[in-house]
Amino acid sequence: MKHQTVAILVVGNEILSGRTREANAYLASRRLFECGCKVEEIVAVPDIAIRIVSTLRRVIRTCDGVITSGGIGPTHDDITMRAVAEAFDVPLQEHAETLAAMTRHYGAGNINSGRRRMAMLPAGAMPIVSQNSIAPGAAIGNVYVLAGVPEIFASQLEVILPRFGGKPYKRLEIEVSLPESSFAEALDRLQARFPQVEIGSYPSHCGRKPRGKICLSSQDASQLDKAKVAVVGMLASL
Amino acid sequence: MKHQTVAILVVGNEILSGRTREANAYLASRRLFECGCKVEEIVAVPDIAIRIVSTLRRVIRTCDGVITSGGIGPTHDDITMRAVAEAFDVPLQEHAETLAAMTRHYGAGNINSGRRRMAMLPAGAMPIVSQNSIAPGAAIGNVYVLAGVPEIFASQLEVILPRFGGKPYKRLEIEVSLPESSFAEALDRLQARFPQVEIGSYPSHCGRKPRGKICLSSQDASQLDKAKVAVVGMLASL
Repeated sequence: MKHQTVAILVVGNEILSGRTREANAYLASRRLFECGCKVEEIVAVPDIAIRIVSTLRRVIRTCDGVITSGGIGPTHDDITMRAVAEAFDVPLQEHAETLAAMTRHYGAGNINSGRRRMAMLPAGAMPIVSQNSIAPGAAIGNVYVLAGVPEIFASQLEVILPRFGGKPYKRLEIEVSLPESSFAEALDRLQARFPQVEIGSYPSHCGRKPRGKICLSSQDASQLDKAKVAVVGMLASL
Repeated sequence: MKHQTVAILVVGNEILSGRTREANAYLASRRLFECGCKVEEIVAVPDIAIRIVSTLRRVIRTCDGVITSGGIGPTHDDITMRAVAEAFDVPLQEHAETLAAMTRHYGAGNINSGRRRMAMLPAGAMPIVSQNSIAPGAAIGNVYVLAGVPEIFASQLEVILPRFGGKPYKRLEIEVSLPESSFAEALDRLQARFPQVEIGSYPSHCGRKPRGKICLSSQDASQLDKAKVAVVGMLASL
């Protein structure tokens, strides 16, 4: 059974301090939408073990799957693997195959403590191996621990994506140049008429010239088309 | 007493479905960093009242202040004000001054139900009025409810920012072209030597040519400078 709902846990002080604009959850949410998996929550926490552990324990209960991003490198601020192990009450242990692969890659003389650290996975975890990194992510239970470097995150995401989703979501958008308040009531009625279609209204600017988009998404292509016709008709009638 | 820690709650299906790349929490985290306020968590939830309420109630307990983004327009998917009222166990009620300001702005004949909805604030809330929107945000307790449209969010943020922060954080970065694993141990020792400086290592690419940045941030400029000298010296000694 594939995961139908997911939480994305972003680990890293660089996100919370505004140094880095979040990119991995954004990519994952687009890909998961296309796969038909609903992202229930995106949450970013600092590089503090207790915060990662408590957040993981919370979202594990509410979602089918959890994808984490960041904190699995060799430096002191990379503590996600340890926190995931703690959340599952298992030890962190050297993963023999991973260490062997790293030793083949770097040469036996070049396995320093930082690299050795990247071969430590929670006991019972499966490594997530992708083309862009010799150091793996890890899958344990319903949690998938991915890297923070965007190129590596993206390649690891593609490896695990077949475990997520169902019927793909489709989205379409309708441009509007009316103030939202002029169609809010009518749109509310259309949302009630098409419960299988998620209807959102997104003004892009609220100056003198109102403009924006009404966004429709659904797993049901036929309902999506019908809702689009209804929204276009509603806007034309104003 | 200014808020020293803050959680940012982003409300909106468009973020979770990957339609829209999050911009408001990113802006707020940069500005709050400059003001010396620590962002403890950024969390995005869908336009579902119970999810907004439960998330608010959770982060209100753990942070000095909470800033929300999105869901305060006139359409059916704009439910943040109602959820905030529920989180505080107060009714949502028409805010007379806001309705009067909107009536002056639009003219008495142009206050439809959508606009009237935007004058509904949680009982006891203060409107957050900014230049970019006639419809206000709201401040209640330690929660600040801001708009989702980036231009409006940005202008409302500047209005409330004087309530946040302390000694500004400063950040500086050092470029490196070495694999992280080569300096991980030494950097860990430097982090222990400079507890008032937050040291992070961010590889930007993990291909054949390693490169990245070591990022130092602190509220203590003197410690920050000393830590920089130490990190540069450490890198030169490798």
